[in-house]
Amino acid sequence: MALSKKPYKGCRDLFPKEKREQNFLFDTMHLAAKQFGYEPYDGPMLEEVELYRAKSGQELINDQIYSFTDRGKREVAIRPEMTPTVARMVAGVHREIPKPIRWYSIPNLMRYERPQKGRLREHWQFNVDIFGPDSIYHEIEILQVAINLFNKFGANENQFGIQINNRAFVDFFFNKTLGLDQDKAYALYKLVDRYTKLKPEAFEEQLNEIGLNNEGSEQFKKYLDIDSIDKFKSFAGEISFSSEKWDFENFFTTLEKLNLLNYVEFNASIVRGLDYYTGLVFEIFDKHPENRRALCGGGAYAGLMSIFGEEKLPGVGFGLGDVTLKDFLEVHNLMPDFSTPQHDLYVAAEDDNLEIDILNLSTNLRNLGLNICHHTAKAKFKKIIQAAAKSGSGAVGILQSHENQTQIKIKNLNNNTTETFKLSESEKIKLFILEK
Amino acid sequence: MALSKKPYKGCRDLFPKEKREQNFLFDTMHLAAKQFGYEPYDGPMLEEVELYRAKSGQELINDQIYSFTDRGKREVAIRPEMTPTVARMVAGVHREIPKPIRWYSIPNLMRYERPQKGRLREHWQFNVDIFGPDSIYHEIEILQVAINLFNKFGANENQFGIQINNRAFVDFFFNKTLGLDQDKAYALYKLVDRYTKLKPEAFEEQLNEIGLNNEGSEQFKKYLDIDSIDKFKSFAGEISFSSEKWDFENFFTTLEKLNLLNYVEFNASIVRGLDYYTGLVFEIFDKHPENRRALCGGGAYAGLMSIFGEEKLPGVGFGLGDVTLKDFLEVHNLMPDFSTPQHDLYVAAEDDNLEIDILNLSTNLRNLGLNICHHTAKAKFKKIIQAAAKSGSGAVGILQSHENQTQIKIKNLNNNTTETFKLSESEKIKLFILEK
Repeated sequence: MALSKKPYKGCRDLFPKEKREQNFLFDTMHLAAKQFGYEPYDGPMLEEVELYRAKSGQELINDQIYSFTDRGKREVAIRPEMTPTVARMVAGVHREIPKPIRWYSIPNLMRYERPQKGRLREHWQFNVDIFGPDSIYHEIEILQVAINLFNKFGANENQFGIQINNRAFVDFFFNKTLGLDQDKAYALYKLVDRYTKLKPEAFEEQLNEIGLNNEGSEQFKKYLDIDSIDKFKSFAGEISFSSEKWDFENFFTTLEKLNLLNYVEFNASIVRGLDYYTGLVFEIFDKHPENRRALCGGGAYAGLMSIFGEEKLPGVGFGLGDVTLKDFLEVHNLMPDFSTPQHDLYVAAEDDNLEIDILNLSTNLRNLGLNICHHTAKAKFKKIIQAAAKSGSGAVGILQSHENQTQIKIKNLNNNTTETFKLSESEKIKLFILEK
Repeated sequence: MALSKKPYKGCRDLFPKEKREQNFLFDTMHLAAKQFGYEPYDGPMLEEVELYRAKSGQELINDQIYSFTDRGKREVAIRPEMTPTVARMVAGVHREIPKPIRWYSIPNLMRYERPQKGRLREHWQFNVDIFGPDSIYHEIEILQVAINLFNKFGANENQFGIQINNRAFVDFFFNKTLGLDQDKAYALYKLVDRYTKLKPEAFEEQLNEIGLNNEGSEQFKKYLDIDSIDKFKSFAGEISFSSEKWDFENFFTTLEKLNLLNYVEFNASIVRGLDYYTGLVFEIFDKHPENRRALCGGGAYAGLMSIFGEEKLPGVGFGLGDVTLKDFLEVHNLMPDFSTPQHDLYVAAEDDNLEIDILNLSTNLRNLGLNICHHTAKAKFKKIIQAAAKSGSGAVGILQSHENQTQIKIKNLNNNTTETFKLSESEKIKLFILEK
């Protein structure tokens, strides 16, 4: 029986058009990160399962991780996210390198998802992290890098926004104001995380189960109503949340002075799951009515080094997947057309026995830095022109035998001029091809 | 107990220096492939095990593949090589696209290896394939792309060479000349593949087991002695190997006219295992006395489409791993120094309350295309200079409060000149920073 030609479920075959699109995303990511002084890194495709268990708990492993036992009886997993890997790597070297540590990566990741729009089992994720002393400037910088990336694609504050919250603030409210023990605080976090997905009755029921007193319930509902920076500040004042835990006045003032406040909204329902965050948490969301969803998330985490027995080294970071980013760019018409490749010259011959000439000319032009698509089999004029057009070349060259010499007739497809050259004139040919 | 900070066995943590080195390899690969009109593609990290079983047999799966059963009871494997994936993808689309199809990729692959020098469990592999009608020009082009890549790194024919053989020739010799049945031919292929690793006695013993007659044994030993193109041609003549099966005269003449024959040696012991090759097979090898080993291999294969129920579409390709390539470049001193990043400017402040100025100036300079590493925490002059040097920046800028205005003093570290600017003069600052 013939084998399937389809890719494994939830994974993509990236044909040249799709791969050029992805390379465009990657190139822009590299640029955005480098402009802020971030250095590239990468880690293994496989990690020991223990790493994810320590960071995210058994739940993620049971539900979402591709894990198996290797031939050496090690329990391993294909990386579902990059943060545990970067934390492990930083834990190994942070003593020897200056702070802050600014690193980025674009790894391929696997999660056991039910494939749906914007969510696949395999995706590539732009990961940007800064490690160093706790500072609102690091939180702001991570937002800046993300905004810079979207700006580079041509997106502005009408197209995307950033919803923020702060886990130190939520912790303070749950523990100090509401006086919850660890179990109840955990249950309430889970409820906040599901808040926007629950129907009002289901929400009320689950809130009742947690068993806050009347005053607590009222305060909690007021908390959930926080949807602006002003409401946040007023609520923070009411519960006496101290700026020692988060220097929010300075945070918002700085964003304002950097002209970035127009990107930012406060949203109390963002807590980023039960994850490892301890400070700022945020989600970048698409403002397009047809694609209104979170594009990426991130935040500040202080405790990740401890699982490696290392002293505290706070970090802030975010991860942005290539699938959601591509959806965003397409819905806003920000994805350029990559349907054809971009060769400089397509070259072929109308006459017999010109293979060596084609190959030598192509080599000479490549040595001058040009991208040449050559075709050694003899072809008819019309076929050559058609093939050149399909190949997306900027020029087409046809070798001809002429009075015992080989010559090349070149049509520049950018300005529709045609000229004939001797094969030895590769410098002149290059100039002619590159004319606009 | 604290978790390990080491990567999974046989995998690498690529810290910024190592990742910059790898990016240099990747960038050069992209360039080399694009110069020949090759288009990028990629496929899934996981494939169904059936794909590798159909192509390479159960042996590879038992010994070398990371395979497991997913939650949907599918038997899957982490890709150990890219050829099955590219064949699957081409099988799905080849009817709709012009031939030849020229594709390349740089995927990360996993094999269950015993880690040793130049051989890890995870590596990235440059894969280049051309699909289209059977043609010696496609075989030659693949050799050209490989040679072009090595030349781009600065390597020449004194540093690397290509050993070739042809499976159509070996098949002809085994089947027609020696008259072997399938089992015996298979056993003899295995013996050739192990030839250079076996001691003479072991070789004789295994040859006896196969049971060639005296004349056959003599001919086989003569075959193994072929180590030059002349010897090959003479042997091909003796056994009446027909150029219909491989147009070798034209193949070698073309290589000669392209000045590439100096890279090529004939080596009868190269058969590329029991793999799917049907025509040219080759290995690129390092000529350095301390690293004399195969760097990469490839060849021509005609039958891969059949496992997908598709008509014949011959292909030629090669795969080159990043680990072996890096070893090659290092032993020949061809790896540039990537120990420090390359920022354009490191900027910090000596005085208090200049964070906003630092951030705004950095943004303005980034908008002009510069890569800026900023430091918001106030620091002493000497510390700033040290940090800038470590960051590998081309210039260091120090903000100072001066008569109620903020100014920036910049030292260009390329030409050791220093100048002071107003913060508004970002265009002037850019020009000064980029001066050599």
